[in-house]
Amino acid sequence: MKDPNNIAVVGVSGYTGFELAKILLRHPDAKTLTFYVRDPQGAHCLTELFPQLRGWGQAPVRELAVEAIAKSGAGTAFLATPHEASAELAPQLLDAGMKVVDLSGAFRFRDAKTFQRWYGLPTPHAGLLGQAVYGLPEFYGEKIAAARLVANPGCYATSVILAVKPLADSGWIAEGSSVVCDCKSGATGAGKELRRDLQFSELEQNFKAYNLFSHRHTPEITEHTGLPESQVVFSTHLLPLARGILSTIYVTLAEEQTPQSVEVLFRKTYADRPMMRIWKAGTLPELQHVAHTNFSDIGFVLDQPGRRLVIVSCLDNLGKGAAGQAVQNFNHLLGVEEQTGLR
Amino acid sequence: MKDPNNIAVVGVSGYTGFELAKILLRHPDAKTLTFYVRDPQGAHCLTELFPQLRGWGQAPVRELAVEAIAKSGAGTAFLATPHEASAELAPQLLDAGMKVVDLSGAFRFRDAKTFQRWYGLPTPHAGLLGQAVYGLPEFYGEKIAAARLVANPGCYATSVILAVKPLADSGWIAEGSSVVCDCKSGATGAGKELRRDLQFSELEQNFKAYNLFSHRHTPEITEHTGLPESQVVFSTHLLPLARGILSTIYVTLAEEQTPQSVEVLFRKTYADRPMMRIWKAGTLPELQHVAHTNFSDIGFVLDQPGRRLVIVSCLDNLGKGAAGQAVQNFNHLLGVEEQTGLR
Amino acid sequence: MKDPNNIAVVGVSGYTGFELAKILLRHPDAKTLTFYVRDPQGAHCLTELFPQLRGWGQAPVRELAVEAIAKSGAGTAFLATPHEASAELAPQLLDAGMKVVDLSGAFRFRDAKTFQRWYGLPTPHAGLLGQAVYGLPEFYGEKIAAARLVANPGCYATSVILAVKPLADSGWIAEGSSVVCDCKSGATGAGKELRRDLQFSELEQNFKAYNLFSHRHTPEITEHTGLPESQVVFSTHLLPLARGILSTIYVTLAEEQTPQSVEVLFRKTYADRPMMRIWKAGTLPELQHVAHTNFSDIGFVLDQPGRRLVIVSCLDNLGKGAAGQAVQNFNHLLGVEEQTGLR
Amino acid sequence: MKDPNNIAVVGVSGYTGFELAKILLRHPDAKTLTFYVRDPQGAHCLTELFPQLRGWGQAPVRELAVEAIAKSGAGTAFLATPHEASAELAPQLLDAGMKVVDLSGAFRFRDAKTFQRWYGLPTPHAGLLGQAVYGLPEFYGEKIAAARLVANPGCYATSVILAVKPLADSGWIAEGSSVVCDCKSGATGAGKELRRDLQFSELEQNFKAYNLFSHRHTPEITEHTGLPESQVVFSTHLLPLARGILSTIYVTLAEEQTPQSVEVLFRKTYADRPMMRIWKAGTLPELQHVAHTNFSDIGFVLDQPGRRLVIVSCLDNLGKGAAGQAVQNFNHLLGVEEQTGLR
Repeated sequence: MKDPNNIAVVGVSGYTGFELAKILLRHPDAKTLTFYVRDPQGAHCLTELFPQLRGWGQAPVRELAVEAIAKSGAGTAFLATPHEASAELAPQLLDAGMKVVDLSGAFRFRDAKTFQRWYGLPTPHAGLLGQAVYGLPEFYGEKIAAARLVANPGCYATSVILAVKPLADSGWIAEGSSVVCDCKSGATGAGKELRRDLQFSELEQNFKAYNLFSHRHTPEITEHTGLPESQVVFSTHLLPLARGILSTIYVTLAEEQTPQSVEVLFRKTYADRPMMRIWKAGTLPELQHVAHTNFSDIGFVLDQPGRRLVIVSCLDNLGKGAAGQAVQNFNHLLGVEEQTGLR
Repeated sequence: MKDPNNIAVVGVSGYTGFELAKILLRHPDAKTLTFYVRDPQGAHCLTELFPQLRGWGQAPVRELAVEAIAKSGAGTAFLATPHEASAELAPQLLDAGMKVVDLSGAFRFRDAKTFQRWYGLPTPHAGLLGQAVYGLPEFYGEKIAAARLVANPGCYATSVILAVKPLADSGWIAEGSSVVCDCKSGATGAGKELRRDLQFSELEQNFKAYNLFSHRHTPEITEHTGLPESQVVFSTHLLPLARGILSTIYVTLAEEQTPQSVEVLFRKTYADRPMMRIWKAGTLPELQHVAHTNFSDIGFVLDQPGRRLVIVSCLDNLGKGAAGQAVQNFNHLLGVEEQTGLR
Repeated sequence: MKDPNNIAVVGVSGYTGFELAKILLRHPDAKTLTFYVRDPQGAHCLTELFPQLRGWGQAPVRELAVEAIAKSGAGTAFLATPHEASAELAPQLLDAGMKVVDLSGAFRFRDAKTFQRWYGLPTPHAGLLGQAVYGLPEFYGEKIAAARLVANPGCYATSVILAVKPLADSGWIAEGSSVVCDCKSGATGAGKELRRDLQFSELEQNFKAYNLFSHRHTPEITEHTGLPESQVVFSTHLLPLARGILSTIYVTLAEEQTPQSVEVLFRKTYADRPMMRIWKAGTLPELQHVAHTNFSDIGFVLDQPGRRLVIVSCLDNLGKGAAGQAVQNFNHLLGVEEQTGLR
Repeated sequence: MKDPNNIAVVGVSGYTGFELAKILLRHPDAKTLTFYVRDPQGAHCLTELFPQLRGWGQAPVRELAVEAIAKSGAGTAFLATPHEASAELAPQLLDAGMKVVDLSGAFRFRDAKTFQRWYGLPTPHAGLLGQAVYGLPEFYGEKIAAARLVANPGCYATSVILAVKPLADSGWIAEGSSVVCDCKSGATGAGKELRRDLQFSELEQNFKAYNLFSHRHTPEITEHTGLPESQVVFSTHLLPLARGILSTIYVTLAEEQTPQSVEVLFRKTYADRPMMRIWKAGTLPELQHVAHTNFSDIGFVLDQPGRRLVIVSCLDNLGKGAAGQAVQNFNHLLGVEEQTGLR
């Protein structure tokens, strides 16, 4: 029998996989925990790969082989793998009766063409796209609880959707007006591949914009806010710090609002959502408030006379933006409290 | 006789004054150079105050006294002083027959009420406001050359105006559309006052927005682009690096343009302006390209079908954003090449 | 009755107190937790003072008054206060029957003159000095368990003593030879007072030595290693990062050793000490391995022919170097596992 | 005829070559300046390779070919190339009648075996080793002026030798005592090769020791201070900042000295050396004082009773530690003032 509390993690060499390892090693409902990697380099346990994890707990490391995972008794698989690898692994693990939380972009879109257009890769098992649930538990918690395949959202997308969707769902955004999402991320968000622009000497005193009008998280934002692509301007920047995303979002409201009414909208939307923290009208969260946590913080300033709204949305790209949110989704799969193991 | 090549600098303790000192010590047209400070702490020359300047050149330090400056034979005064001090000093130095380059906000506005509204301070000598020339040499070079009092622009304002004014002057901005200016600055831009949020341990891994809808540089932007306040959304952020401003500016164009037409507009506007560097359409400047220089770099991306324009405008807040631009203005006063002493 | 699981924390505004708050909020044996501060600024609970702690748990904040603490039923007090305040508070709280863990330097020395000489302050209750136990649990765990007053060690001292004491206790250090301790600390180690040299723009690209031959942690090192002051050269440097101490320690050995024999010495000394991690001979810990943890890591390189030893000792100055170690001491007072609440 | 003011620079893609480019573009005695690279990527001039150099001046870029350089009329070649490439290029360029300033380690040692032992590479043209002059102009200025081949010193070695050689030459170091050189460098010193540990996310909050007892700069230090290898302990660390080396050096003096006598020794040694700045006894230089300059700063603290001396030696690893020193050597070759083009 597959036990969902027995966990297989595929991929641990990237920043997301490593963060996931640290969280799961301390998760009270992780009965067994096994890591599968392409090349174990002779290691049999996690601390042989990462000596700095000595004292955090222990877990075996195995060479990646689908059959081994399938036979292992693990009921849940986390895929901290590239899009292509996830697209290939997920169907096989599902076939073996496991539940899958995929941290890549492979299953985030309902429409097969969206993945093809933005990722430039052939569509992974189109049949699965309909089954995959977008893993944003603040909005899709019940569906996630019942899902077999959870597509963990993009970090930028999480930050923007959590700030914009309450307004969009309420019809508060002026029709046809641009929603400008100026997002800034720390360097771990760019992954662990060796890149010149991510070398310390190149980034330490640098700041830059990148991927204007072409970032892959765009279709997640449009799909889940319901805003047309023509209305969303989404830009991304690289910050000289390791962890965190801060999105400054500019919205023109359909009708005049007061700071109170805006605050109430956010508070109502996120009542009883333990990972959301709404700041008092006129006060703003900062990256240091969410770094190394799974919280997503939202604050805003409303201009007089109440039509121009600037929202600041913060999260840790490795926490709520990736590994933390994956575990939050896992908690929904298990039916335990959403924040279990995340504090 | 007052000789404009004899220079008095008032204030050297802040980041701007110190940067000004370093530039002027190497300026080929600085015949004499004297620093005036409130409290010389017993120092008689600059390297007694700043041992790290040994080897850069030498200059006397005197206690600040207007009469002493007036009698000194200096023909040009730089004021690297707070708004209130500049408001008090400038008229007296002008009366003494000197030319004044003021780096504070005291003389940046034609309308006395603007200063009062945004700075919350009584208007300085309203009579002088009409005489003061806004020191943005790319647009007002001739006026600056003939001026007695130059009001050196704000750092953020310089960054935004240089990017937006060419479009506004050409009527390219869609009427009534929001121009969102999402600006990010390094920590030296916040000055040298001891502040909790500027302590290293608070900022190193932090990033935050501040002064939304209330930053003092707003009226400079509206006055010099001609855009109404209702059309400009100007926000500022604090970056965990020392030097540089990067402004990401979102403009909706009145008519469809091509990347080429936009690039041509910027290139024509800044032809023969040695401090402006226009990047090829689709390529973007980064902060590291302008740090420790006096350059102002502009790049952009134009979305299909040519109505949504994102401009990235970069400069060093202590260079082109403050001390460097002050010296550029000084060069216009002298009638020497604009970039003298700035490379 | 005083219950040691009821906790009073005095001081939370510094980095150490804040870190202590975060650890204790999650400590399974903290039955009640109350914070006492000089000026509560109208706050009644911790998240009013620190909005970023929302979601971490809740604790009341009270104005500091010894009688209130004494009557509160709390059995343990943590003092995250300046030396002078600790010297005044500790005796009163002890008189009230509480156990005290003091994070200042006030009770670290047996000899009253030592405190006077190095701190330049009048000796605090000399009578208490004999009772205070130096809170380095790897060496004094049993005494700590029985203590009423625990003097939590200095961060640098912890880092040096843990590396040098095993060698000194074994008589391995060549007589009369210099033990050079070249230590580097992150900025939180310097405290939260506003200081020019700790401003971001001053430190971000800076590195400097300070307090050569005069650092207050020197007498802790000599007292607990037994080395005479003439044999210890202890220097401190400020790193442009927030958290962590790395000490590079140069020892001349009395007799030739092999890498294996040195490794065995460290492993034996720290067998069953869950917070100590000894690195394989020839491999070295780095600051990132211990930041945000309570671990103390030790690695070394031994030169051929086995007389010159360089040890690298790493810890987080707010973890094992301060708040974490205080909680480790608290665990000894309670008689629970040393690492409780510290992972 | 070869004109030494006509300059060929080989290699510009590394940090050292790029810094050299920036200095030489502004050097008043650089009559012509041509860059030779293995792969010009289609570029014909420097700003095509580095758009951020627009406005700094212009220089042609050519594909590297020894014959082309030999025929070009250039009289001086700078080699900012790896050891192997320098070993191959230098003899050919010397044969062509050029003077060569080599920034690699290939020609730094008189004894062919030293290079082999520390670099693990076959000895380059042993015949040239005798002709090469070690390019430390503060000590070997006259020899450099007459040299054909200048071997530019290592960055760490420069920092240590400038601090220790005055003491060693004066016989002030206690015989047989260890001279501990604990050196810390910014990340540009590690070069521009893509390395995991130099990625921003790995280094930003990290600090580590590396290459203990095995750093290649060791033999430079022993050769030029005259100290035996057994007396020098040289360790290196990687700082989370881009530029600068700070070496903390621990010396036991043969006889008691006073702070004044030590200061006088340094001042006399470096009288009339414009790039050396000696700090007053008891005051210490910091990295920020030398970053982006060609200065080498030395300060010290002497313990009572005057036998234990700690020296702090600072320089910019790309300035005085590499490109700046290379230009200083070039100035000696030309016979112009040592600091020409270096301020």
